Amino acid sequence: MKQTRISPKHPRAESLRIRERLVEQFSNGVVTAAGLLAHGRGEAFDYLLGEKTSPIALKAMKAAAALLLTAEHPVISVNGNAAGLAAEDIIKLAKQVDAKIEVNLFHRSLDREKALEKLLKHAGATQVLGVGEASSATIPEIASDRRRVDPRGILIADVVLVPLEDGDRAEALVKMGKRVIAIDLNPLSRTAKFASVTIVDNIVRAFPSLTRIVEKLRTEDKKRLKKLLDQFDNGRNLSEAIEMIEKRLEHLAQKSQKGSHLTVLEEQDA
Amino acid sequence: MKQTRISPKHPRAESLRIRERLVEQFSNGVVTAAGLLAHGRGEAFDYLLGEKTSPIALKAMKAAAALLLTAEHPVISVNGNAAGLAAEDIIKLAKQVDAKIEVNLFHRSLDREKALEKLLKHAGATQVLGVGEASSATIPEIASDRRRVDPRGILIADVVLVPLEDGDRAEALVKMGKRVIAIDLNPLSRTAKFASVTIVDNIVRAFPSLTRIVEKLRTEDKKRLKKLLDQFDNGRNLSEAIEMIEKRLEHLAQKSQKGSHLTVLEEQDA
Repeated sequence: MKQTRISPKHPRAESLRIRERLVEQFSNGVVTAAGLLAHGRGEAFDYLLGEKTSPIALKAMKAAAALLLTAEHPVISVNGNAAGLAAEDIIKLAKQVDAKIEVNLFHRSLDREKALEKLLKHAGATQVLGVGEASSATIPEIASDRRRVDPRGILIADVVLVPLEDGDRAEALVKMGKRVIAIDLNPLSRTAKFASVTIVDNIVRAFPSLTRIVEKLRTEDKKRLKKLLDQFDNGRNLSEAIEMIEKRLEHLAQKSQKGSHLTVLEEQDA
Repeated sequence: MKQTRISPKHPRAESLRIRERLVEQFSNGVVTAAGLLAHGRGEAFDYLLGEKTSPIALKAMKAAAALLLTAEHPVISVNGNAAGLAAEDIIKLAKQVDAKIEVNLFHRSLDREKALEKLLKHAGATQVLGVGEASSATIPEIASDRRRVDPRGILIADVVLVPLEDGDRAEALVKMGKRVIAIDLNPLSRTAKFASVTIVDNIVRAFPSLTRIVEKLRTEDKKRLKKLLDQFDNGRNLSEAIEMIEKRLEHLAQKSQKGSHLTVLEEQDA
């Protein structure tokens, strides 16, 4: 695809820049065609959420930070879109909470795994688990290649952060007794539902915010962190996210009727 | 991308089959990376619309049919996603209302135009306008390559059907005094707003439905058709579509709280 120049004045410049980054990583073999489709779905939900981090997402991030700070073996599971969009921010968070980074792909190939490894190392990762033969363990209940995991990583993890996950896998990890943190723009997805803590936000915004919150909470004692966690209700948080979209739609419908010009999702789909 | 076998029992089999068709047309050079992203956005909105043709969309189709049946020079403008998903249904409608078919791409290249022409002719088109040098005319107000049109087609058209259009172009066509029929899953898009008649539906369902409605209305006299058109209010229709999404979100949120398992958008995005 030809690169399109994006005017900084364009009402959707940020969203278009993220999109370009993803298309570039598609050319590099990091992102798949399925990943582009998934990102499009994410764009639609992000638009409905107002393309900003909500207080609802911040509440989930606090619980996620508490989970990460009290974990024995935290692991961040990275797929193509996550690496393509947020490699550096993922590494920063991993270093801060001493989490391992593991590549885990739905559409698995050694070439892709190596492309992700290269990208993550270039972004500052010192160790990348799950590449090639390193994924020698198998977890139950997943039909796809995602069942293959690294015995040093997801297999022994107590907390797994899964940005942009598929529902089957989130469910399987929870069934194995792991606590799962998901970052998902769709509050209705199965991933969102199965996860222990779901952050309904764009990963591009969520990783830096989560890292800031971890920084603030890292001096708190474990008891206080556990209390933070106990107070968090993922189901209620998701309901609030859905209600937020409803309210925004109501607002947009009113604006639409008044005839003001909305700057909505670009449909440069030809 | 590896082809994934889709079980007919999969709750989202139809959506996954459409997706596979698009990825196939991506390999053929008909669809672009931007087209895959756009389709992802469409999937999200279609999910929110319940993935079926609503009475609201049927109302818009009636108005669209009246426009097409009273047009002097109707043209169907075809881009990559439209051709990739609905070539045969587009041809059927074109034959029924004696509309010309014109290729018009945002990401233009002669190779792509020829790939679309081949696909459309294979699907039964006898004439495909807009390919290569045939796009010798220029319409005002569009910054992209879309300004190049065929003097036998869009340039002289009074009614243009633009499935999956970008907002700038819909606006430009309307400013030229043309009546624009859009098919767009996002009732909040600029295209939806600028068009004379917006059908908020998936093109895969919309083309066959629109063709059936044209068939029913073709014997009506012009006066009755004009009345149908006068009674249609696009702004109100769009507001109704947005309200429909709100109600569905409310319904889904309730289901979600009850703990029933939603079969939501697949997030096989790795």
